[in-house]
Amino acid sequence: MFDTVTSDAFQQLRQRAAEVSRYGAAAGLLGWDQETYMPPKGQAARTRQLSALAELIHRLSTGPEVGEWLTQAEADMEAQGWDPDSDAARFLKVARRDYDRATRVPTEWVVEFSRLTSEAKMHWQQARAQKDFRLFAPYLRRIVEMRRQYAEFFAPYDHIYDPLLDGFEPGMKTATVQALFAGLRREQVALLHAILERPQVDDAFLYRPFPVARQKTFVREVLEHMGFDFQRGRLDESAHPFTTGFSVDDVRLTTRYKETDFFGQAFYSSLHEMGHGLYGQGVDPRYEETPLAGGASLGVHESQSRLWENLVGRSRSYLQWLLPRLRDAFPGVLDDVDLDAFYRGVNKVQPSLIRTEADEVTYNLHIMLRMDLEIALLEGRVDVDDLPEVWNRRMEEDLGVRPKDDAEGVLQDIHWAMGALGYFPTYALGNVMSAQIWQALRRDIPDVEAQMQAGRFADLLAWLREHIHRYGRKFEPLEVLQKATGQELQSQPYLDYLRTKYGEIYGL
Amino acid sequence: MFDTVTSDAFQQLRQRAAEVSRYGAAAGLLGWDQETYMPPKGQAARTRQLSALAELIHRLSTGPEVGEWLTQAEADMEAQGWDPDSDAARFLKVARRDYDRATRVPTEWVVEFSRLTSEAKMHWQQARAQKDFRLFAPYLRRIVEMRRQYAEFFAPYDHIYDPLLDGFEPGMKTATVQALFAGLRREQVALLHAILERPQVDDAFLYRPFPVARQKTFVREVLEHMGFDFQRGRLDESAHPFTTGFSVDDVRLTTRYKETDFFGQAFYSSLHEMGHGLYGQGVDPRYEETPLAGGASLGVHESQSRLWENLVGRSRSYLQWLLPRLRDAFPGVLDDVDLDAFYRGVNKVQPSLIRTEADEVTYNLHIMLRMDLEIALLEGRVDVDDLPEVWNRRMEEDLGVRPKDDAEGVLQDIHWAMGALGYFPTYALGNVMSAQIWQALRRDIPDVEAQMQAGRFADLLAWLREHIHRYGRKFEPLEVLQKATGQELQSQPYLDYLRTKYGEIYGL
Repeated sequence: MFDTVTSDAFQQLRQRAAEVSRYGAAAGLLGWDQETYMPPKGQAARTRQLSALAELIHRLSTGPEVGEWLTQAEADMEAQGWDPDSDAARFLKVARRDYDRATRVPTEWVVEFSRLTSEAKMHWQQARAQKDFRLFAPYLRRIVEMRRQYAEFFAPYDHIYDPLLDGFEPGMKTATVQALFAGLRREQVALLHAILERPQVDDAFLYRPFPVARQKTFVREVLEHMGFDFQRGRLDESAHPFTTGFSVDDVRLTTRYKETDFFGQAFYSSLHEMGHGLYGQGVDPRYEETPLAGGASLGVHESQSRLWENLVGRSRSYLQWLLPRLRDAFPGVLDDVDLDAFYRGVNKVQPSLIRTEADEVTYNLHIMLRMDLEIALLEGRVDVDDLPEVWNRRMEEDLGVRPKDDAEGVLQDIHWAMGALGYFPTYALGNVMSAQIWQALRRDIPDVEAQMQAGRFADLLAWLREHIHRYGRKFEPLEVLQKATGQELQSQPYLDYLRTKYGEIYGL
Repeated sequence: MFDTVTSDAFQQLRQRAAEVSRYGAAAGLLGWDQETYMPPKGQAARTRQLSALAELIHRLSTGPEVGEWLTQAEADMEAQGWDPDSDAARFLKVARRDYDRATRVPTEWVVEFSRLTSEAKMHWQQARAQKDFRLFAPYLRRIVEMRRQYAEFFAPYDHIYDPLLDGFEPGMKTATVQALFAGLRREQVALLHAILERPQVDDAFLYRPFPVARQKTFVREVLEHMGFDFQRGRLDESAHPFTTGFSVDDVRLTTRYKETDFFGQAFYSSLHEMGHGLYGQGVDPRYEETPLAGGASLGVHESQSRLWENLVGRSRSYLQWLLPRLRDAFPGVLDDVDLDAFYRGVNKVQPSLIRTEADEVTYNLHIMLRMDLEIALLEGRVDVDDLPEVWNRRMEEDLGVRPKDDAEGVLQDIHWAMGALGYFPTYALGNVMSAQIWQALRRDIPDVEAQMQAGRFADLLAWLREHIHRYGRKFEPLEVLQKATGQELQSQPYLDYLRTKYGEIYGL
């Protein structure tokens, strides 16, 4: 489709984008291998290899020639009157955005920040091992300072957090997210408190032994059945599950296996990563090696992973299909567990200290805490030294649990050590979007529950492909959402979903 | 060690070499992944990614600035009087050689040849599938023509084959190899004929079923025990076994498993690849990311793989250690096979049509046939169209077997389709060197046989490290051999080895 664009500058940009994308894929594979198969002592050389490629990619992406091509291509677009929603116009818009973001930040800042965060990661690891936030505090202080500087490169802004958030969620404003989250927090906390007054759910059967070899076969079969294309992707093992991809035809998921925690470790994390992977496999192949390849944002990506993990994977209809298959694959293990008990078990609500282990009702509360603290740090309203105490107080307030040390509190996530302030909100945005998308999808496929009961996922996947996946990065997150659902971002569908589902499970 | 070299030009070269090495490692991983884990449909994108890196590496290796740095560094060396055997002087020598080889050939030739060989590979595959050499002949004709042109870029030469051979075996001359091979061929054919008049060996027990899961564990344990460092390497699966590496601390072997051919597929190919891998893990780590990293040549590399596969792995002493371990790992399978029968079985001599399945006595005959035909084609003494008949006649003459079609004759190897004329001799050179090295090693470690019987390989590996591995590419193949054995390249040790071993087995 881009071949017919009669702008030399555009074609130059396109060629450069293809080149950068190929080196990016090589870097992606080096990263994937590092987490999956690389022998332990290969680390030092791998770090050098990754740096060399990162430097090359940065140079090719930010060179002055790119700026000149952009300006000229934009002039050509203007002169030729391209449709602003055409692929070529959107290509230019995204390329311009990427270029401006990358070049507004001085190289010296990038180099210093990269040095700082690689030290910070080391010290965060030590601090976490020793459960002592004070070992990490000086690095976090410096990271916050540098992130303030970073925001200034994008001045003027409405909110100092905007430039950070925008890096992960293009076009999203802090004010929008804050308004959304305020309502969510109130309602989710109220729901949680109501649930905690009800009799608790038994989920002990989930921790029975499921032989790992059979877990692997089972997960693979389920993913394949649900639509993940193993001709164009893989599922491997890593310490922390993730999804990456080197082309629309080569998308890699990872998971991990533990005999006595099949659902917590392998099963639901695989469904989650599959959600990311289906998005990756669903982007219009004509966008390959252009700025339009990839996903719209972390939030939209998370909407897909959470949709498959929770709205599908933890629904009664889906479990009705799944349970007999589990019984076949793991003879005897779940014989005494009926659908109702199973459904309640995998949806058990329990306030916990660790974000990554949180259920649907409490998960967003972990996120909001982090976002509020990030903003308070940037605004100077909270001092880094006070962070553990502020964290713990808020945990008690929202969730009624208090970390007994920093490792299960303020030190649990690597994101701040990586300098990734502004990242956390995308997880909760993904949850919110997932319910909104699901609502729209159910309007278009009224019998989707019956289809899931019958183990049919083709219509569901086709709908997501059609309304979300194929667009890649062509549209900004809020545009994608508008196109898919006809609505602005809103929390009501997610709250309705939670209230209905957990109201029924806990008899509220 | 290179930090102290006071030559700016040298330091520039060094920096460029490091950069090229890092991109080379990325390309290496893309290639490894392609053969091991890549999903089938990832191929198209992978090809583009590999081309992008190849082009980048070529550009960075052949730029005029590299020539200027070389000239200046050589002047600095001259002025400062570097020891010609110092690492820095050898670095320069190897860098000069690589640069000259890469820049003597015009880019247009490289591009055209690359296009030709990628077509040729496709047509070779079809021809082999249809067992019809005529489908491949036009491409081979063109490859021979272009290889003649190629040789001219290196004129003057003693023999048109020299520049081709030199690409794989630096410093090696066609005349040297021909003289060596003439004696070998006569003697190996005579030995084979003598063997064929004796009662044949029973090796049917090798094809009993060995469960694949246990094969995997066993091979890994054996390799680890023999010295392959899995902290700095891996063993994976691929259709054709190979070894590659992305640093001295990240060396990857592959093998393949077949239940009813444990020794032919997994076991001996793993020992073979381990030989390559131990070489890769043994290079002086201070040579990392310099032109001195890697192996001296394909021949020297093959001497290591063949040494571990055959001189160690098929020796009676080694098998005396191995057999009880096999019996433990595969209960019942080899209970009725004693050491003598096992030793004779894994050393069975049998003329066969396929090079990769050949035993020690016949293997070199397959190689010499190929080298002679390559030279005859280049010299115009044999026409491409007559190749199948010439091939088949020679097979009958040397081995007493005649291919019934081209697939098991002239079309069996991919090398010519890849344009790799001059490659084959390195396999036989490796065999010859392996025996010569083994002779020297036994002088220094008189009880090496007893050590192997006891499963002790540390002295053996240390000797190879000391005399061969650590030098990397610092010395040319014949220099390495001279340093390790105190002798010129010669066939006598290999012939003595064959005559003694097979004379005893076949009672000659």
